Parts: sequence; structure tokens; C-alpha cells
Amino acid sequence: MISTTESTVETIEWTREGVVMIDQTRLPRETVFVTCRNYGEVADAIRNMVIRGAPAIGVAAAMGVALGALQSNHLDADVPVICETLARTRPTAVNLFWAIERMKQVYASVRHLAPEEIRARLVAEAKKIREEDIAINEAIGRNGAPLVPDGKTVLTHCNAGALATAGFGTALGVIRAAVGMGKNIDVFADETRPFLQGARLTAWELQRDGISTTLITDNMAGHFLKSGRIGCVVVGADRIAANGDVANKIGTYGVAVLAKENNVPFYVAAPLSTLDLTLASGEEIPIEERAAREVTHVQGVPVAPEGIAVANPAFDVTPNRYVSAIITERGIARAPYGESLRSLFHGIL
Amino acid sequence: MISTTESTVETIEWTREGVVMIDQTRLPRETVFVTCRNYGEVADAIRNMVIRGAPAIGVAAAMGVALGALQSNHLDADVPVICETLARTRPTAVNLFWAIERMKQVYASVRHLAPEEIRARLVAEAKKIREEDIAINEAIGRNGAPLVPDGKTVLTHCNAGALATAGFGTALGVIRAAVGMGKNIDVFADETRPFLQGARLTAWELQRDGISTTLITDNMAGHFLKSGRIGCVVVGADRIAANGDVANKIGTYGVAVLAKENNVPFYVAAPLSTLDLTLASGEEIPIEERAAREVTHVQGVPVAPEGIAVANPAFDVTPNRYVSAIITERGIARAPYGESLRSLFHGIL
Repeated sequence: MISTTESTVETIEWTREGVVMIDQTRLPRETVFVTCRNYGEVADAIRNMVIRGAPAIGVAAAMGVALGALQSNHLDADVPVICETLARTRPTAVNLFWAIERMKQVYASVRHLAPEEIRARLVAEAKKIREEDIAINEAIGRNGAPLVPDGKTVLTHCNAGALATAGFGTALGVIRAAVGMGKNIDVFADETRPFLQGARLTAWELQRDGISTTLITDNMAGHFLKSGRIGCVVVGADRIAANGDVANKIGTYGVAVLAKENNVPFYVAAPLSTLDLTLASGEEIPIEERAAREVTHVQGVPVAPEGIAVANPAFDVTPNRYVSAIITERGIARAPYGESLRSLFHGIL
Repeated sequence: MISTTESTVETIEWTREGVVMIDQTRLPRETVFVTCRNYGEVADAIRNMVIRGAPAIGVAAAMGVALGALQSNHLDADVPVICETLARTRPTAVNLFWAIERMKQVYASVRHLAPEEIRARLVAEAKKIREEDIAINEAIGRNGAPLVPDGKTVLTHCNAGALATAGFGTALGVIRAAVGMGKNIDVFADETRPFLQGARLTAWELQRDGISTTLITDNMAGHFLKSGRIGCVVVGADRIAANGDVANKIGTYGVAVLAKENNVPFYVAAPLSTLDLTLASGEEIPIEERAAREVTHVQGVPVAPEGIAVANPAFDVTPNRYVSAIITERGIARAPYGESLRSLFHGIL
């Protein structure tokens, strides 16, 4: 089921053997690829954060639906169960539900065809979602790069990079595109407890790209925002409400407040599939609570007394007033977000 | 050199065998006591954070001077060297320099006496500094407890507890006194990366006291301050400038900004020995930069790619405008701090 060390790292791929993902729980110590051979394994990989990042789990869910359909002899009965299983893996990132919904719509539109043809269309759609995601990230990068101040440091939180997407990244896509434009920037990466996506994934990605990166603990962000060296903050998003409130990795809200307090622009980079226009505000976004062990243990090593109570919300909500702009593949939205997001969104419908 | 497991835990004690400290690098997994048999070992213990917390390292430094004097046959030559060695261990907490200065003054006042008498006076002074610190913390607790809202959660950062002092604690002293008054409160403890004083020390202390405590990662503090459940924040301090700017464990500034943004009172609990009236503002406070390995490794386990750059400032400065009050053993200072701190300070001179 597993192969190791490749030179070009792909977050997720459709192969003859199944859905192949780099195991993000083991980076950066080991570069291990996991092959999910059925949709249940894809669901487990999402739940256990072998793959994470809103756009990446959207792609994974779509591939999970395709894989499930490929192995089903009773599509009409199985497809809803497959979709439901994948939808129950994680509650906050809306891209997961968006991708499943898109697969359901394709299924509905091809239901009258022969089973082999249905399966082929679902596989094609999942692959297309992956390819589109890379193109979308490149567009986000192009749109966002001009916002990045030259000669300063960019602060980012969590990992909104190639590993959080099908490739290139949202927040890290903006950083990559800014570097590609010739801007002289470096990056400060919050380590992002408890899962350490910043330390383990962002630092690893940017180091491979040769982009100068300094790792800090989450609680240092304020100190450096106050110091004047940070030119802007760029983060990703897991769900954006109609009013521009942004759910993203826990700690994002704190960084946003500290950025505003120090007059540093705070940018959110996300595909329009992250937008949830059914929610009036961020208060309606469901916030996942994860296991206490993620906090009490680091890489399996205990760091707290046994039996201590833990809170572990995986996300927080940043009210729109702290968001300087939302960078999408169709352009940049600014306040008032109710209007700007809706017009960007409807531009592609 | 080492003995294990005792029921009453003392942070630091003067014994016939030397200066005995609980090893704070090994809590909560192991309750190990270290005996420093000469002043160089005391200096190492401070530098390596076997003992930490501004008031505790003040006591340790005083005991280090006494121990050095006890083993010296050339007091006039050795005492300045001993003091200098201890002063070079850590730069930020002013209590260290305050305690050394106090020992120097005692030495100057008894220099004319017989060496045995001088040594006895220095040992007595070090023990007195320890006893005074416990009494001071109890007074801080009494003064601060009325400020703690009943029926709400207290958020604290780092460890300003019995382990950071000779006993009882400053911020945790306020919490203990509030519980002692019968207030119905619980505590949220930031884990406090990179050294994890919150997870390893505060959680452990409060658990032993039976005070309901929930451990969170540092980046969750904003989320819970916004939620409305936090009634106040109480933290300690490593150095307070004449204008009320507060240097404390890295991340304190971020918590203070987030508290203010959400209209939650932010209290600093510290003895007057933490006050440095020679500094006009917090900008003049030297901030210790510690080793990269504290960030890249957790309990010896690597959590980041090899060779990544790291910033590791151990403290930050919270400007006085975020501080609702400073709780001292002589009373409570409020803005404008220039006046209020000076009058509290001169009350004891």
C-alpha cells in the first residue's frame, strides 16, 4: 500500500491502484505515500488528516465518490451512501460538501447511461476537479501577488500550500506568485498547534522551493506584527460566509486582530468553492472539535499531566471587519463583502 | 544528586547539601529534585530553565550568591565574580538583578565582619528573600482576588504559579485566593509554546490543587476570549517599566490585545521587585533570544524540517494601554502607571 521518496511531490493523484496521497501526518520526517483502495479508506484519510486543507479534501472527496462508484454494482443504492460517508468525515471546510454536491449532480445527469459510462464520467469529473483546482490556485496567485509588499516579510498561519490543495496552494500560491514576479520577500510561518501544519508542512514546502522561511510559535505572531517587519498576512480559508466572515484554522482570528491592531493588511486567499452563500454570517459555521490527544501529545509524546481537560476547536471565525481583502480566482473582494463576494460568485455560475 | 517523589512540592529550598530545586524541565512526567552544590550549578539551573519564573530565579540567584560565599576563602575577590556569573544567566527578568543587588548590598554592609559571620549573613538573607517571596505572593493573591469575576473562567498564560516563585504564585496566587474566597471559577491555561510552561507546569499545579482547568493551545486564546466565557486574564511579569509596559512570556502581548478587543480585563500580578523604574518604557527591556531547538523539537522529538530558520524571542512587551491593572503586594496600580507604580514602589523604600 505504500511507496516512499519521490522527487516531485503530488498531494493527491488518481491512479490505477487507487487514490494516492502523501501522508501529511508523517511529514516532514517521512515522505510516505498512502494508496486508498476504496472510498472507506478515502474517508478515513480525510478524518485522520492524512490529507487536509479545504481544497485538498474537496478533491479527495470527489475521488472517493468516483472510487466508490467504480467498485459499486448498485449505483443508485450506493452513491448516496458513499456521498454521506464522505460528507461525515469533517464538518467545517465547505469544499468537501461542494465537491460531493458536484459529483452528485454529475451522477444525476448521467444516471440514464450504462453503468460503465456513469463510472467513467464520475472518474473524469473527479480528475477534472483536481486539475481545475491547480489552475484556480495559479489564478489566485496571479491575483494576489500584486498585494504583497516588496521587501517585507509575509506572515502565514497553518498550511494553505500545495499540500492543502491539488497543487500550488492558495496563501502559499500568492507567496509563490509574488516571488515569481521578482518580489524580494521572506516568510514567517506560524507553527500552528496542535497539528503543527506550519512547522511540518509550510516550512517543508517553502524550504523545498528555496523561499526564505522562518518558523515561529503561534504566540510570537503578535510580537513580530508589532515589530514592523511584517508587510502583510496571507492565510487560506475553510469556509467563508456570505458576509465575508472567514472560518480558518484555529488561531487565524488572533492573527487577524493583531494584524489590524498593527495596521498590517490581512488577506484571505481561497477559491470560490470555499464560499458558502447559504450562511448569512460566520456564527453559523460549524466548528469541528477534535480529540484531546492532539493537544496533550506531540508526535505521540505526552506534554501535559494525565487527565487534564482539553478544548480543541480546530477552527475559529474571523469577523469580516478584520479582513482587508479576499483573493479568489476571479478577482479580489473587498468590504462590503456581501456585495463583492456575491458578484464574484455569480460571475462563474 | 537527585531524589524523587515528595508529597509537598517546594520550588526551591536551602538545605545542608546545597540548593534543592524541582526540575521544571522534567515536569509533569517526572517529579525530580536537583541539588546544586555550588554557585556554578545554580547558574546552569537558571540558564537551562531547571528553575524559571521571575521571582523564582531571583530566589535562586540569591541562594547562588550565598552558596558561592559559603565555599569561598577570598570573599572580596570571589563575591563580584559569583554575582556576575549569576547575572549573566538570563537577561529579561529583573528580579534576578534585584536579588543579586540586594545580596551585594548586604555583603557591603557586613564586609568588616569575620568571614564566618559574613557567610552566615548572606545565607540568612537568601533564605529571607525566599520567605518574603511567599508572603508577598499571598498578599498579591489577597489584593487580586476581588478583581476576579465570580462564575466565569480565568485565562492565564505561561506559569506564574508556585513553580515560578518561592511558593503560592503571582497570577496563580490570585486564582488560588479567589477560589479560597469561595468564588466559583475555572481556569483556561494556554500551553505556552515553546517551553510548554502552561501545559507542563500550570496544568499540573492547578490539577494538584483541584482547581478545574482546561488546557488550550496558545492560538485558541482569541477564540475563547471572543466567546464571552472568559471573565478576566491574569498573567505574571518578568519586568515592568516605569510607564507600566510589561515584559512577560512570549505571547502575552497577543493575549492582551485580544482581551482588550473583546472587553475582557487583563491583569498583571507581580511583586514590586519586578518593577524597573530605571526604564522609561518597555522598549528598553532586553528580550532574550533562546535556542532554535526549543521550537524545532518538542521534548526531544523533531517537529520541523531540518535546517529551517527559527526565531525564538522568549518574551514580548505589552504596552501599558492593554493592561487593566497591575496587582502588587502593596496594592493595585492602574493607569496612569507612571504615577501609580511610583507611589506603590516608594511606599516600601
